[in-house]
Amino acid sequence: MKRHLDDELKRLKDKLFRMGLQAEEAIVKASKALFERDSKLAEAVIKGDQEINLAEIEIDELGHELIALHQPTAVDLRFITMVLKINSDLERMGDQAVNIAEKAIKINQEPPAKPYIDLPKIAETARGMVRDALDAFMKQDAAKAKEILEKDDVIDEINDRVYEDVQKLMREKPDTIPQGVALIMVSHNLERLADLATNIAEDVIYLTRGIDVRHHIRERREEASA
Amino acid sequence: MKRHLDDELKRLKDKLFRMGLQAEEAIVKASKALFERDSKLAEAVIKGDQEINLAEIEIDELGHELIALHQPTAVDLRFITMVLKINSDLERMGDQAVNIAEKAIKINQEPPAKPYIDLPKIAETARGMVRDALDAFMKQDAAKAKEILEKDDVIDEINDRVYEDVQKLMREKPDTIPQGVALIMVSHNLERLADLATNIAEDVIYLTRGIDVRHHIRERREEASA
Repeated sequence: MKRHLDDELKRLKDKLFRMGLQAEEAIVKASKALFERDSKLAEAVIKGDQEINLAEIEIDELGHELIALHQPTAVDLRFITMVLKINSDLERMGDQAVNIAEKAIKINQEPPAKPYIDLPKIAETARGMVRDALDAFMKQDAAKAKEILEKDDVIDEINDRVYEDVQKLMREKPDTIPQGVALIMVSHNLERLADLATNIAEDVIYLTRGIDVRHHIRERREEASA
Repeated sequence: MKRHLDDELKRLKDKLFRMGLQAEEAIVKASKALFERDSKLAEAVIKGDQEINLAEIEIDELGHELIALHQPTAVDLRFITMVLKINSDLERMGDQAVNIAEKAIKINQEPPAKPYIDLPKIAETARGMVRDALDAFMKQDAAKAKEILEKDDVIDEINDRVYEDVQKLMREKPDTIPQGVALIMVSHNLERLADLATNIAEDVIYLTRGIDVRHHIRERREEASA
């Protein structure tokens, strides 16, 4: 029975990883749609979210089935409920990619205002965090997960700079205000993606170390940004 | 054993409800701190988030304990994993309240720019959605949960208007740009709160009706905002 459960847990893990890769791809494409002004690609992201949504339902059902059928040990149970949580975070990443894609379509309708400031840097950092969170999950690697938490501070830093730069731009050229506001929203979406990656990293650390770093870290972050 | 589990499930439910009320209170206070320029109240919200964080850990542990000890039926298991998910959503609501409180402190340092446009209306609608989501959860009332999903469209509508009004304001008085950007961020935080309430409502419908409305609704929303 245990042997069988181990196989099933591996299947669950692999499914989640594949869904994670889909979410990562959606982020890459949505960013590209914005930075390279490719609205067709943005539409593909919006359409493709359906698949991520279906994957979420499938993983959710498999997780519940495994708990009901196998009466897992405390450790295996924690692993499964962690998968259910990460599943939900990945689905929300897909939603954030859709949000970015929608704004890309809007922004692409106007003539280009100016380079996207540091947004591509945030996009690349956030995407890297998502990939690292997936890797940390697959290898149950707490050290790697910890690195992700540190990167979140980098995101906050660049984000503050983006806000300042955009405000400066809007002040100098009031015509750029609508685009400036849209860029701030995209920046916020990317920050949310980084947050979701951080949630996953915190869960991995919690499971592997058995300590609850979640709020400890959050407080540190809140203090820092206060 | 089953009788005992029923008592425990009731205890879990009550704990979650109390935590929900704390989150709701944090939202009310954070909004008040902004609209009435009360930075002391904002600081209380930031400090008080610690209690919500502790409640999350407690509920998370109790939920896992119940699964491990009682081998619940499929329905009870779904209920418990739903509680774990809502638990996480409530904790994130607390974080959003903290975000608003932090921005209130920043905004309150500047002289008042102008009335807060439709923000108080969004704040009140979002708070009402959170309370209704809690009630729908407590009564397992799918009809009430459905009403929440409809309110989410109202939020999106007011939000769009806020964006337009703030942009107009910034165009006319460039000095208001920093505050305008902060107000947009608050508006976004309130939208996120409404989203979290919607997540809870979707979970309630899913559990009571046994159908997955989650993505169906999301798609409708995405189409509408595309």
